[in-house]
Amino acid sequence: MSEYILPIQRLIDSFRRLPGIGGKTAARLAFAVLDMSEEDASEFSEAIRSVKSEIKLCDICCNICTGNICSVCADPRRDPSVICVVEDARAVMAVEKVHDFKGTYHVLGGNISPMNRVGPDDIRIAELVERVAKGGITEIIVATNATVEGEATAMYIAKILAPFGVNVSRLAYGIPVGGDLEYADEVTLHRAIEGRRSLN
Amino acid sequence: MSEYILPIQRLIDSFRRLPGIGGKTAARLAFAVLDMSEEDASEFSEAIRSVKSEIKLCDICCNICTGNICSVCADPRRDPSVICVVEDARAVMAVEKVHDFKGTYHVLGGNISPMNRVGPDDIRIAELVERVAKGGITEIIVATNATVEGEATAMYIAKILAPFGVNVSRLAYGIPVGGDLEYADEVTLHRAIEGRRSLN
Repeated sequence: MSEYILPIQRLIDSFRRLPGIGGKTAARLAFAVLDMSEEDASEFSEAIRSVKSEIKLCDICCNICTGNICSVCADPRRDPSVICVVEDARAVMAVEKVHDFKGTYHVLGGNISPMNRVGPDDIRIAELVERVAKGGITEIIVATNATVEGEATAMYIAKILAPFGVNVSRLAYGIPVGGDLEYADEVTLHRAIEGRRSLN
Repeated sequence: MSEYILPIQRLIDSFRRLPGIGGKTAARLAFAVLDMSEEDASEFSEAIRSVKSEIKLCDICCNICTGNICSVCADPRRDPSVICVVEDARAVMAVEKVHDFKGTYHVLGGNISPMNRVGPDDIRIAELVERVAKGGITEIIVATNATVEGEATAMYIAKILAPFGVNVSRLAYGIPVGGDLEYADEVTLHRAIEGRRSLN
């Protein structure tokens, strides 16, 4: 026998489909599932099923939700005239954790990435343009990741929204708080100097 | 909202129960499941279910199997008088991959570890003694891991099997093939010198 018995091998194969999980880790995780209690394993199996069956995208911002409208868009205290554009639902959570932002979101579902054959039509830019075209939007904060793809996506959004005359901004680049100058890369340092703020 | 919506949070919690998976990795994996195709996700969910429902322990060696007897014990070409004692089913696979060993196995299901409150009665040592007591066993190769716990387990097994007069051996310690002396720890090097083999 050069492979595990079927039920374990099936589970190993499933774990391997996840990003960043190689063969050895997949085997370790599959055996951990085998060692789980009956309840934990059945809860795990059920959780996978319900993630696929219960989660939909918000009709307004495309964030994940269980109804038609996500909890942010449904909240009357949030300002619908300010839209923070993010890559995915995890970025929404990251911004929400700061408790600073009182506007709403638009979840693109990815970045423009010619390398991976993802063009502007493959992410939800048309939906964003539609929201802006309806009017009532004063500011767009593009909070895509600080990667080449995130940057390209931000540039594209700024260009395509230019005719609508809304304020489009990008998150500030700079040294992360608690960061050591010595370990900052040149590009970050360059952006930090460029974006310096007056102290008086 | 400081937590994800329920279906995602449930799945994150399930992933976090796996060893070596922290909060951020669990979230990343849960979102990867959300992005999976309908078929892959349902296969994953089903694989977890069937690992728990279909896998049993071999009546003879306690290895995992889908019937009553595992494929090694059921194989007439394998020598049942030699038993390789391992910690878990993954170790069986590791030894099987070498294609060297023609005996059978005994899967302990763990190691003696007083730190984790695992005593000799918590792993399948009694079952091993029973097999040896039945007679017909000539050699026991203890292939527990080269850890403190694996070593303690090997010593305990050697002691408890002493009255039966079977040959009990332990895997050789030494420099791993391809290993650099410079990076070998002192204990390994000490064992390698101790276990040196004559070349003439």
